[in-house]
Order: sequence, then C-alpha cells, then structure tokens
Amino acid sequence: MTAEGSPLMDWEREARMGLPEAVYAEGKTAAQLVAILEQARLRERPLLLTRLSAERLAQLPAPLQALLDHDPLSCTAIFGTPPVLAEKAEIAVVAAGLADMPVVGEAVRTLAFCGVPAQVIADVGVAGLWRLMARLEEIRAARVVIAVAGMEGALFSVLAGLVAAPIIAVPTSVGRGVATGGHVALHSALASCAPGLVAVNIDNGFGAAQAALRIARQQGRVPEPR
Amino acid sequence: MTAEGSPLMDWEREARMGLPEAVYAEGKTAAQLVAILEQARLRERPLLLTRLSAERLAQLPAPLQALLDHDPLSCTAIFGTPPVLAEKAEIAVVAAGLADMPVVGEAVRTLAFCGVPAQVIADVGVAGLWRLMARLEEIRAARVVIAVAGMEGALFSVLAGLVAAPIIAVPTSVGRGVATGGHVALHSALASCAPGLVAVNIDNGFGAAQAALRIARQQGRVPEPR
Amino acid sequence: MTAEGSPLMDWEREARMGLPEAVYAEGKTAAQLVAILEQARLRERPLLLTRLSAERLAQLPAPLQALLDHDPLSCTAIFGTPPVLAEKAEIAVVAAGLADMPVVGEAVRTLAFCGVPAQVIADVGVAGLWRLMARLEEIRAARVVIAVAGMEGALFSVLAGLVAAPIIAVPTSVGRGVATGGHVALHSALASCAPGLVAVNIDNGFGAAQAALRIARQQGRVPEPR
Amino acid sequence: MTAEGSPLMDWEREARMGLPEAVYAEGKTAAQLVAILEQARLRERPLLLTRLSAERLAQLPAPLQALLDHDPLSCTAIFGTPPVLAEKAEIAVVAAGLADMPVVGEAVRTLAFCGVPAQVIADVGVAGLWRLMARLEEIRAARVVIAVAGMEGALFSVLAGLVAAPIIAVPTSVGRGVATGGHVALHSALASCAPGLVAVNIDNGFGAAQAALRIARQQGRVPEPR
Amino acid sequence: MTAEGSPLMDWEREARMGLPEAVYAEGKTAAQLVAILEQARLRERPLLLTRLSAERLAQLPAPLQALLDHDPLSCTAIFGTPPVLAEKAEIAVVAAGLADMPVVGEAVRTLAFCGVPAQVIADVGVAGLWRLMARLEEIRAARVVIAVAGMEGALFSVLAGLVAAPIIAVPTSVGRGVATGGHVALHSALASCAPGLVAVNIDNGFGAAQAALRIARQQGRVPEPR
Amino acid sequence: MTAEGSPLMDWEREARMGLPEAVYAEGKTAAQLVAILEQARLRERPLLLTRLSAERLAQLPAPLQALLDHDPLSCTAIFGTPPVLAEKAEIAVVAAGLADMPVVGEAVRTLAFCGVPAQVIADVGVAGLWRLMARLEEIRAARVVIAVAGMEGALFSVLAGLVAAPIIAVPTSVGRGVATGGHVALHSALASCAPGLVAVNIDNGFGAAQAALRIARQQGRVPEPR
Amino acid sequence: MTAEGSPLMDWEREARMGLPEAVYAEGKTAAQLVAILEQARLRERPLLLTRLSAERLAQLPAPLQALLDHDPLSCTAIFGTPPVLAEKAEIAVVAAGLADMPVVGEAVRTLAFCGVPAQVIADVGVAGLWRLMARLEEIRAARVVIAVAGMEGALFSVLAGLVAAPIIAVPTSVGRGVATGGHVALHSALASCAPGLVAVNIDNGFGAAQAALRIARQQGRVPEPR
Amino acid sequence: MTAEGSPLMDWEREARMGLPEAVYAEGKTAAQLVAILEQARLRERPLLLTRLSAERLAQLPAPLQALLDHDPLSCTAIFGTPPVLAEKAEIAVVAAGLADMPVVGEAVRTLAFCGVPAQVIADVGVAGLWRLMARLEEIRAARVVIAVAGMEGALFSVLAGLVAAPIIAVPTSVGRGVATGGHVALHSALASCAPGLVAVNIDNGFGAAQAALRIARQQGRVPEPR
Repeated sequence: MTAEGSPLMDWEREARMGLPEAVYAEGKTAAQLVAILEQARLRERPLLLTRLSAERLAQLPAPLQALLDHDPLSCTAIFGTPPVLAEKAEIAVVAAGLADMPVVGEAVRTLAFCGVPAQVIADVGVAGLWRLMARLEEIRAARVVIAVAGMEGALFSVLAGLVAAPIIAVPTSVGRGVATGGHVALHSALASCAPGLVAVNIDNGFGAAQAALRIARQQGRVPEPR
Repeated sequence: MTAEGSPLMDWEREARMGLPEAVYAEGKTAAQLVAILEQARLRERPLLLTRLSAERLAQLPAPLQALLDHDPLSCTAIFGTPPVLAEKAEIAVVAAGLADMPVVGEAVRTLAFCGVPAQVIADVGVAGLWRLMARLEEIRAARVVIAVAGMEGALFSVLAGLVAAPIIAVPTSVGRGVATGGHVALHSALASCAPGLVAVNIDNGFGAAQAALRIARQQGRVPEPR
Repeated sequence: MTAEGSPLMDWEREARMGLPEAVYAEGKTAAQLVAILEQARLRERPLLLTRLSAERLAQLPAPLQALLDHDPLSCTAIFGTPPVLAEKAEIAVVAAGLADMPVVGEAVRTLAFCGVPAQVIADVGVAGLWRLMARLEEIRAARVVIAVAGMEGALFSVLAGLVAAPIIAVPTSVGRGVATGGHVALHSALASCAPGLVAVNIDNGFGAAQAALRIARQQGRVPEPR
Repeated sequence: MTAEGSPLMDWEREARMGLPEAVYAEGKTAAQLVAILEQARLRERPLLLTRLSAERLAQLPAPLQALLDHDPLSCTAIFGTPPVLAEKAEIAVVAAGLADMPVVGEAVRTLAFCGVPAQVIADVGVAGLWRLMARLEEIRAARVVIAVAGMEGALFSVLAGLVAAPIIAVPTSVGRGVATGGHVALHSALASCAPGLVAVNIDNGFGAAQAALRIARQQGRVPEPR
Repeated sequence: MTAEGSPLMDWEREARMGLPEAVYAEGKTAAQLVAILEQARLRERPLLLTRLSAERLAQLPAPLQALLDHDPLSCTAIFGTPPVLAEKAEIAVVAAGLADMPVVGEAVRTLAFCGVPAQVIADVGVAGLWRLMARLEEIRAARVVIAVAGMEGALFSVLAGLVAAPIIAVPTSVGRGVATGGHVALHSALASCAPGLVAVNIDNGFGAAQAALRIARQQGRVPEPR
Repeated sequence: MTAEGSPLMDWEREARMGLPEAVYAEGKTAAQLVAILEQARLRERPLLLTRLSAERLAQLPAPLQALLDHDPLSCTAIFGTPPVLAEKAEIAVVAAGLADMPVVGEAVRTLAFCGVPAQVIADVGVAGLWRLMARLEEIRAARVVIAVAGMEGALFSVLAGLVAAPIIAVPTSVGRGVATGGHVALHSALASCAPGLVAVNIDNGFGAAQAALRIARQQGRVPEPR
Repeated sequence: MTAEGSPLMDWEREARMGLPEAVYAEGKTAAQLVAILEQARLRERPLLLTRLSAERLAQLPAPLQALLDHDPLSCTAIFGTPPVLAEKAEIAVVAAGLADMPVVGEAVRTLAFCGVPAQVIADVGVAGLWRLMARLEEIRAARVVIAVAGMEGALFSVLAGLVAAPIIAVPTSVGRGVATGGHVALHSALASCAPGLVAVNIDNGFGAAQAALRIARQQGRVPEPR
Repeated sequence: MTAEGSPLMDWEREARMGLPEAVYAEGKTAAQLVAILEQARLRERPLLLTRLSAERLAQLPAPLQALLDHDPLSCTAIFGTPPVLAEKAEIAVVAAGLADMPVVGEAVRTLAFCGVPAQVIADVGVAGLWRLMARLEEIRAARVVIAVAGMEGALFSVLAGLVAAPIIAVPTSVGRGVATGGHVALHSALASCAPGLVAVNIDNGFGAAQAALRIARQQGRVPEPR
C-alpha cells in the first residue's frame, strides 16, 4: 500500500445495479484522483466525478485536466464519453431559487452521464405561488420529479400535493440563521403533510439522480447500462 | 414567605400595555392558583388562565372550579366576566390540521377574553392546496392573520406569499419523528422564503393572540382596556 | 365551527394523485374521528386510519369500533372495503429486527388498503449477514424495496449496494442511548455510501408505502384508483 | 435554460402584497445578479439587494456597480430610485450593542427603500439598564418597534414588558461559545416571559422590516406601493 | 457486594471541604437509601437527601420515614438535626416565577441544613420590571445572590447589571416549546452581556447553595462545619 | 409470516465469533419473546435476555417465567444453564455511583452468562477521589476494566490515566439537566485527554461485556464457546 | 446616529458594581473602536479590550495602536494605566493543557487590569494526575480558583472534590470531534458530581475573572475601584 | 511562568501505562512545541506529534524541522528514533474509503512509533460488499481490528458481525450534509446491532492505536516499553 491507499473501484456496480461507479472527489488527494482516472482509462470507462471544485481541478496534471469536461457551478466533471442523451426528457428537476442551481446542475449532469435528459424548471419557490402554478402541467408530464429547495423547503409539500409522480426532495444548504446547513429544508421534506415524498441528503443532487435512475430504469425508459 | 411563595401579579400590565395579566397555570401548585384567584376576586378583575388541564382543574376547591369557564381542549379557563365581543371579526386564525385545534382554541379564547372575536379557518393544510385557495378571500379580509401549523409548517410560507396582512406563525408540536416537539414547523416559519412572516414559540396560541392584540390595538380596532 | 373544527377531507386526492386520503389519528379527538368516519360513510368511501392505538379505538362509540378492522401492532384501522389484493407481490418489505414489525405492519397495511400485496422479509439485520444473503434473491425479484431498520440502520447501505430496484429507507425509533428516537438510523440512510437510497421520516411506514405506490403506479402495475 | 437558470422575479408581489420583490444576493452567481438587474432596468423598477458583500459587489461589471447604492456595513444595495422618505419616523429600531449595527442597517435600509424612515436607538443593552431607561419615552412613541440583540437577548423581554406597541425581535449572531450563531438570542425571544413578542430569523433585519411594513401599512401610515 | 452495591459515603467531605456529604436520591433504590441512612445513624451524622419525591419516600420503611423531615415541593429531606440557623440572612434567593419555587426550596433547604438562612424574593420576573426594582435594595444587601429563573432567563442579566455581589444563576426547566428542559435559561445565563455571572446546572438548587457556601465560608460568615 | 414476524435467530454467532446470540427484549412483543424462547428450548441453548423489565416478564406465560432467572435491577434474564464461572475474576467493573448499578448488573450478568466472573468496585466517583485511590491496586490487577459512570463521567479519564489495561467506558443515563440521557458522560469518554479509552453506547452494559469478552477471549483466558 | 452607531459606554459600572466597563472587540468595526477609545481618552479612563486579534489591531490608526498594551496570545489590550498589582496572589488559575493558555491569559490580564495578581498553574490535566497532585497545596492556598480546561473537562470535577474554595470553571474550545466548540467541557462542569462548582461560557476567561472579582471584592481583598 | 506556560510532560506515562507520552500539536504555539521538543532532546526520548499540519511545521525553526519525520497526509511527526518494527502485523486497519486515509495514517504511524506494524486494508466500504468479502480472511487473521469509516459508518456493523477479534471503530469526519463532522458514523458505531463494538472520538486514529496497544500489550505481543 502507498500512504494514500490504492483505489479499489466498484467497476461491477453498473452490471450489478445499473448504476455506474462514480467518484466523490472531496477529501481525496490529487494523487488518489490521478490513480482512479488511470484505472478508468485502462478499462476504457467513462467516469463521473462529483464535488470537484475548480481549485481541486487545478491541482491535477494539465493533460488530465484537458480530458475532463468540468462544470464549475455544479463541481462535476465527466471523464470519457458518456452515452448519447435520449430524446425525450421524462425527469423534471424543479428548483425553488437560483442559489439552488449548483445542486440542480449536479443532478442534471449525473442524469446526462447516464444518457438521461432532464427538464429543468427553476426559480419557482412558493413565495410567489403563481410561478409554480404556471409550470404545473410541464411538471405533471414528468415520470419522476426531483425537487430542489433550501431555506424552509415548502416547495416539497406543495409539489407533493399537486403531482402524482414519484417525488424526490433534495434539500439544499441555501439559507441563513436556523436554515444554515440545510437541515430545515431536509426536515420539512421528511415531516411533510403530503404523502409519499422521499428525501436524500442535503445538497445531494447526485443521489437524487441515482434514485431517479433506479425508478426510471425499472420502468424501462432509460438506456441500458453501457 | 410561604414555602410556595406569594404571588406578585402584574395587575398594572393592562394600564401600562393594554394587555391584561394572565396566568400560565402549568408548574404552579393548586395553592398558588388559589392565592392568585383570591387576589383577582378581591380586585374584581377577570383573569385568564392558560395550560390548565382538566386534571389540574379538578385539584382546585369545588367552589372555585364553579367560577371558572374552563375549555378542556385548549386548557384555558376564564375567571370573572370579560368584555362583550366586538361584532366584526378582524382577526383570522388559519390552521393546517385538526390536531392543531387546541392551539387555535388557546388563541381564540385569549382574544375573546379581550373582547376581540376571531374567524377560524381550519383544516386547510397545503397537501390539498384547493382547501386553502377556497378560503383565501376570507383570509385576505382579515386585518391580522394567525397561522397555526405543525409538521413541516409549509402553510406559513404559502400564506405569507398570498396575503398582505401581518401574519403571525404559531408552530405546533403536532408531528412525529423529526417533527417531534414542533421544531421543524418553527424553523420553517423562521426560514421562510416569504417576506415579513413572524413567529412565536411552539404551541403558543396565547402569545400569538397577544401579538395580534398589540397590532390591532395600534389600529384602534379593539375595545379599550377594561 | 365547533370548538374542535370541522374536518375538511381531501377526498379528491385519489382522483388527483392516485393516492387515497388517509387519517393520521394521533392528536385528533374522538369527536373529530367520528365526524371523519361519518363523512366516509356518507360518501361510501373506504378509509385508512394510522396511529390509532387500542386505547384510542376504545374511546370511539362501540358501533363504530365494530366497523373498523383494527390491527393493534401497527395501530392501523381500515374502514369499509378496500380493493381485492393483486395476486403477485412486487413490493418487498425488508426489516432488520422484530421490534421493527409495527412499522412494517403500517407499510403492509397501507399497501393492502390500495390493493397491493407485499412480500415481508423480517429479522435480517446485518449483525448476522447470512440472514440477509439467504433472502437476497427474493428481494432482488421485487420492483420496489421498502427497508425498515432502527439502531444504526446499516441494513440500508448494505441493501442499496446489492439491489438495483428503488429502495425506500424507513428508519425506526428502535434503539437506546444515542439511537433514541431513530435519528441515527435516519441519518445513516441519508448519509449512505450506497447510491440512490431515499428516506422517509422515522417510523413512517405509511409514507414509505405511499412512495412505493407512486413508483409502482407509474409502472402500471397497481390496480387503478377506486 | 442556461446552466445558472433564468431569474423568475415576483414583480407582482408589490401589487399583491404591498411589499416589493427583493434579491437575496448570497448564493447567487454574478451572472444571475446581472440578469436580475437587467430585468429591473427594463421594467424601470428600483430593486433592493441584501447580503451583497463588498467582495461580491466587486465581481459585478463596473457600470452596474456604479448604479448601485451599496452600504458595506449592512451588505445592502439599492438599484434605482426608491420613494422619498416620509417625514416622521414611526418605527423604532432598538439595538443592544454596536456589533448588532449591520443588522440594524439592513432593517433601516429596507424600510428606507419603501419610503419609511426609522428612529435608531443603539447600544442600549440591559447590562447597564439606565441606557435603555433613558430612551424609553422615544421608544414608546413608536408605532412599531424592531428590537435587535445577540448574546442572551435579554433586551427583548425587558422591552416587551415596558412597551405596548408591536415588538419584532431580531436575534443576531453576535456572541461566542453557547451563543455562537445567535440561537440563544432567538430562543430567548421565543421563550420570553413577556407577552406578545414575535421573532424573525437570526440576523434577518430585512424580514423584520418587512413585517413592520405589513403592520404599518395596515395602519395606513406608509406611502402606498409604487 | 450485594446486587445493588454497598454505599461508600464521602463522610470526610465536610472536614476536607467544609461542605457536608449529601445524597442525590433519584436513581437510587429504596434498599440503597436505607443502607445510607443506616450509616448516617451509626455515625450520628445529619444527612440531606435531594430529589426524593413523595412517591419514593413512601417506599421507605415507615420508621425511617418518620425520621425524615421531608418537603414535598422541593423533594428534599433532612435526616437528623442540622445546626441552628444563624440570625441574619446574608444570602438572597431571587426567583422569576412561582413555578421556580421547587428549585428555590432546594437551595433554601440546603443552606438551612448548613445553618445558613436565606432571604427569598419570589415572583419578580422582568415582564413586570417594577417588581424587581421594588426589591432591589433588599437584594443589594445580600453578600451572595442566587438567581432562579426558567423560560428565557432574562432575570439573570438584568440582575447582574444591577448588583455587585457574586451572582449564581440557576436555570430551571420551567417553560415550553424551545424552552423545554431549561436549556434556554441556562444558555442565557452563560451568554449574558452582564459581567461575572456564573451558572450551575438546570434545576440545581443544591449546587447553587453549595457554591454560595463555598463563597460565604471564605468570608468567615458561615457556622463552622459540624 | 405472522403479523409479528418469525424470529430468525443468529444461532451460529457463537461458533462464528465466540459470542452467543442474545435477545434485546425491549420493543419485542410477548408473542415474539415466546417464539424465541421456544426456539432456544428446541435447540437446548441457554439464552440471555436484556432490557426485560419486571412488567414485561409478567406478560409472559407463567411456566416460561418460571424458567427464567430474572434480575429486576439490571432487567436481565437467563434462560437455561450457562457455563460454570471460572474461578478468578480478571475483569473489573468500576462504577462511579449507586445509581449506575443497573448497568453494572447488565455487564456482570452478561459476563456470567459466558462463564466469566467479574470484580465489582462500586461508588468510587471522583468527587471523593480517595475512594478510587483506595481500590486502585485491585483495579490494576484486572486484565480488562469496564468503567461505568453517568453525570460528567470524569471517572473515565482519571481511570484511564492510572491504569494500563484496556478500559471500556460505559456512560450511563444517570443525571439531570444537561446530563439528561447520558450524552455528557458519553462525550466525556470520547473526548478524554487520557489515551486509549474506548466507549460503548449509553447504558450499554451488555455491549461493554461483549467487548471485554472479545478482548479476553483473544487472550485465551475465557472458557471456550459452548 | 452614524451608520455604525455611537458608542454608549456604561462608565458608571465601576461605581455601581465595582467592575470596570470593558470592550468586547469582536464584531465591532475599527471606527467603533476608535470612537470608544476616544471617549476613554477624554474621560482619562483606562480601558480593557478583549477578543482583539492582531489582525484587528493592525486596522486601527498607528498612533492608537501605540497606546495599546496588546497581548496577541490572549487577544487582550489595555489602554491607559491600570492600578498597581497587589503583592500577594490570592486567585489561582489552574489549566489542563497548553492549548488553554489564551483563555488563561484573558483571565489573568483581566485580573491584572483591576490590580489583582494571579497564580498560574498550567498543564496539569488529569491524564497524568500526579501533575495536579504536586501542585495541590498551592491551589488550596488560593481564596478563589479559576479552572480552565477543554476536551472532556475532567479537571473541573477532580479539583472541586479536592479544594474548598469557590471554583469557577472556564471550559475552552480546545478539542476535536465531539469536543469541537467546547460544549463537552462546559457540560462536564455543569453536570459535575462534585458539589458547588460554577461555570461561565466557553473560552470566557474575562467572565471568570469578573466573577472572581465579585467574590474577592466581597472579601475585602481587592483594591477599591479607581 | 511565561505567557504561554511551561510544558509539564507526563514522561512517566510509559513506565506507568506502557503507552508513551505524545503531543497533540493543534492549538499549541510554535514556542510551546519548541519547548516540548527541547525537553525530549534533553531526556533523549523519541516523541510523537499528532495534528501537526505542514503549515504549522513550517513555523518551527528549520533545524528542528529537519529532526522531525513528518507525514503531511496524517499530520503526524516523529522526533527521535522509535523502536524497530516487529516482524508480523497482528493489527489490521480496515478503511471504508480513500478519504479516510489521513486517519488511517495517524493510527498506523502511532502504532509504528511503538514498534507495532499494521496491515492496512483500504477502500472496502459496504456499497460494494464484495471488496470487503475478498479481504475477510486477512482481517480475521488479525488479533485486533481498527475500523475506519465516515459517512454512515455501516462498515462497523458489518465487520463486527463477521469478525471475532476486538474491533475499535474510528468514525471520520468524511461526509456532507447530515454527515458533516462525522457524528453519524460515530453514532452508527455506538448504536450498532452487532455486539461488542467499541468506539473512539471522530478522526481519532491516535486514540484507536493507543487502545489497540492496551489490548495487544496485555496479550504479550508488543515490544516492551522503551
């Protein structure tokens, strides 16, 4: 073993579960990331990296950087060539405010990495309810809805009372005072008076996308694992 | 001093602040409550008692019990004769669920004790948004709105985005799991994305009514202090 | 309005969302429950009641009690005649320990109320991993998996790493010391290293079943709303 | 949609609620802020921005910066021309310590943006009670009182026991140790032994001002919405 | 060892520290309490028991009960004959509300057990500040002040800004919602803007009395240890 | 499956890990406990039950009760015949106060169920340090030390600085105010300035005994698994 | 009022309470600090500033910096000439580890500002109990003891069981994991099994010194207020 | 005393307990570290420093830096010459993810400082259970297992159900949202359904190694203290 440990990737995950292995970059050293990407290259596998900040990206060797399709807003990077996107977006990503867009981006990029397009409906928080109502038909057309909100997360309950599809709440760390860290939005999703709402961890756009893929894949609407 | 302490009532509060002294019965001994009521009788003052459960009431001397107008749902009791109710209700009390009714009752009874009638709009939680929308005009007609909700408290934000009047959120301890104790509803009110929402403590229907009275009295719409 | 408020049931929920209205009995008075059941009788609608303890049941009028199919372990009651169960169970409910069975029961009874049978796989906590492994094929055969666990909730992550279907984690309040209240199991589900796991509130078997119905109904495998 | 989302401003809020739309700048990208200001310019609407630090301001294009009246202490900026201030200040902003002045500033600037002047009474914490007592008549002359305090927030209760007007407590994040983050001051406001005190989120001077406007506007003392 | 363990009393504490050993009865079995009292009888030592509820007292053998001077409000009991009280009370115990009297009683009885009288000033919470002001000279005459308050504990800071003597804050568990358990009052004492305030645990009247004794004994004003 | 689920005992645990399966009775129904004991009888296996209160025991069929060696203080019961105790106690159980004895009992009874005797050293909390010092040589003679303490748990650090053997801290829920629930003692153990202290969950005497058995068995000093 | 507010110093505090006004610099702007120091200069009063980091100091005008006796370790500064130190140190400051020295420094410098010398006994944490025991006589000679410790704060209880003088615990934010922020040490002090221990806020060396002065001044051992 | 305090090292710890004194560098000033190393040099003792970041190292005098064997990943440094490593690794360090390697390094370096080699098994989190299963025999061969995991810490329970040796869980602060700070992993270890698992503080690789040494030394398999 080197001091930093050898990566032991779960390359079989895609075959086993239909969800490709991905790399949570935060907390990993540059050397560890390089070793992981090296494995991906040898196996000719595309790879998704999440929580990879621009600062972190800059610590990687320049040739590797050039191979990464990096999005600074969502801190995601795609290595290699993911599948072509399906034509019709059957997953809607609905977000309360503009400050939630990094999390929206993480979800959308994760779906795209698996060949699944998403319809984004942004800035429709409940303080001006007409904004949400104006987009309701679009949202109702989706097979799965990912709802993204910080602060008090009232969007989750309102949406879950209006839409019949599975709804995955992604609380975000947007907020101040009691809302710092996103716990209020998380708890609002969990304590919702609307039935059948489920939640993932705060800011976990990746996890919400993976859950949406689990659901969608069961429905036979997602490109088969590569 | 007796072992239990002599009550030192703030009888001047009404003259000073327009809000009558009231008694938070929880945690007081029967002997203390008797001594307080004795003072009220001597001064010929009506008195509101909150958090007085039926069990507690039963520990008081029977003649005293007979003098108390007790409501077991809200655990409030009125001693003596409060002012006649004004004719028109200009305060609306809006509640998300039936389990919130004890807190609604505490607010309504506190207002009534000061001669102020309230319009109650119950069971209009956002899981079925049409219920709230159907009553919106009634709510908008109020000069002050008291909103009562437990669980995730999404009602607060939706209401605050639709109504221009001052809105006082009363989170309730209705809920399970993460919502136990009412902290999620409280935090939802405080972290609301809708502007100008204010909150009182969990289950504090009394406090919300007092705040509504502070606002209404400024507006010259409430009977003068007795 | 009566002191306890008039119930305002969301009877249109089923038409709107494919999920029938249900009654969370905890915190409602006996009079409120009677009024609700009266509405259901008039509309000839079956109705599910959750968190209805045996003590609470006993406070209802005896004739009403006789009309309720009550299960004391899960504290659920069914009023009226729900649809006939489909033949094949496509939802698996996997539980870590016997103390989790009340929550399992709430989920299973909610599904049954909607005509959806479930396969229960109980007492397969990870302390003896062979128990889970022995049932893995049965679990993998399900279209949706509801996982129920208290204490540290390690079952959630292990399951989510082995199974491709959507997995809904229901943390339970089973546990002592730091695990009191179920927050550790909840947080374990949310912080899972396995991808695409979603969670509902602690002890919320009802909510998990509703989420499973949202997913299953999209897949066209559940009897249509009555 | 661009990666950062298109702003969907609630421009009708002012007509609907008498409170103008405002922009919470924290967490928004420079590009999002530019797009929002562009909309305001097109509609010829003044706009208030909160939580806009000097660092953030410097990331905006220089011509836009020049159009913003920015106050570095309160991190607020005003775009365009707000209404002329009324002559008489009927809202008092009372603050415990000098470290609370950024929050005081946010409240005062929000009020000014709506044409409402405020009387500021600063540095009157209860450790030296004479300071508060010396200003009591000024405070009692106000129609609405905004009280701003961090640490243990004892100012809130003392003030609410002395003043009859509506009092809105704004806890601040000023403090160390157990007071870090402002939760003690917030909880002190909520748990106050004085009646009818209401609270907004920690450091939320903007929200307190909006609540004061809801109250004042009902009283017919505030310039009509533009 | 018996199953319940043999008591190992710190009888030398009084010689070592000037503070007599005392028994925290909560959590001890009746058999353990009997064994401890037996030791006290053999050594002819008076003994103070705290947190001994009336229910618990009733589980002791009747002859032992007869030897205990039990106060049901403060749940304290004195076994044997404590020293005669000094004539002049130099310790003041100031309490915010009547619900705090059990804690006041625990402090006063602990002091009395050591021969030290106390002056009690009850029901002087800051909601009606005049009550405290009316008693200020009495309080200022004390050498040590014990302040007892629940809810938001604003009394602590006001008192500490007005009085020069050492002040020991005893937060109480009186309160609801966010104040449940007494943590807000505790944190208010610790985060006070007034200088030199110290605190003991919630409801710990015994500890406050012991601290007052440590201070007073240094001043040579307390009867020497027996 | 019955409604309550069929028990799926991990009977192979003893062969796999040297630690026998045990039953955490809390949260299990009487019917579940009966089914488990029936399995044990069929397999002729002794069985340890923890958290079995006297009230719960009384709900079991009388013949079964008669077969259980139940200890009401520690709420443990032994079914069947455990191995004979070894002669020499090499595990010391050190406890701070008498209220900790139920947890001490759970640990001692668990060890005894595995044939391992323990030396109990009770009531040696650090408030009277001489009590601990007087027993130090006995403690130092042990191969493994289980330390049991509630409140602030200072015993853990003092002991860990004086003794070279492995020390397992068992925080207990003994305490009031901030110490309610045992979290302070737990955190004291985890944050100890003394090196190499390990902790188990609050009140988990069973777990501490199992950990001690893992250590002792490695040392070849414990009777082999049955 | 300027935007930053005019300082309203409590210059009468010293006459009223024997404790001089001091300035908590954190959170105050440079302009506010300058205004305060200007007032002190005009009144010819020495002034203590706490939480004044070297970075903050550097933002003040150079001539003002030159007038401040600044200690970077404790972040305290003294303006003007405090009284000459008394000869004999009657207050002991006992600290568990070297990382606690900034807090020790804050206490010692605050005492010195009032003319009171202190005896510092550092690095005597209980992990090596002999270190404390070796200094016990020195500590017992003090009239008041300030105990400073982070992590699990076991020092507080050990000390309070060995010393008869008043003991003021100052928990520090030294520690990691569960001890982050100093809450464990604080709770250990509050939940101590040793009698009569009192606590101040985390890292509040200033407050502990002020409390010690309240005690000492009562004893007539401290130079009279200037 | 200097302002920063004189170090008082517990050099006798090794003789007393078999565990050498070590230095927790975080929070100590450079001057304090220099003084400590000077003492070590005079006594010719090797010394382990933990939590010594590269930034902190750079503040030490260059000659001292040269004498330190510093590992930037684990932030540990060794001064002087530790004992030669034993040949056979009997302690296994098992880690869930690569981000846990700094904590693994702290444990391994601490063991090495005492002459004890460890076998590291990295990146075997339960999301891909086969990775752990593939290494199970290696882990079972160890006499003591240190398990290192962040996020939900499910590895702890799975491991404790499969391995008979003593297992010490080291939760790490790796994780986001609810897992921030490592509390979920810690609580998972404490609440584990698997028997006999013990835990140390979050990120405390040093403490886990010390506990392993306490166990191993009892087993006579570790080189005697130097």
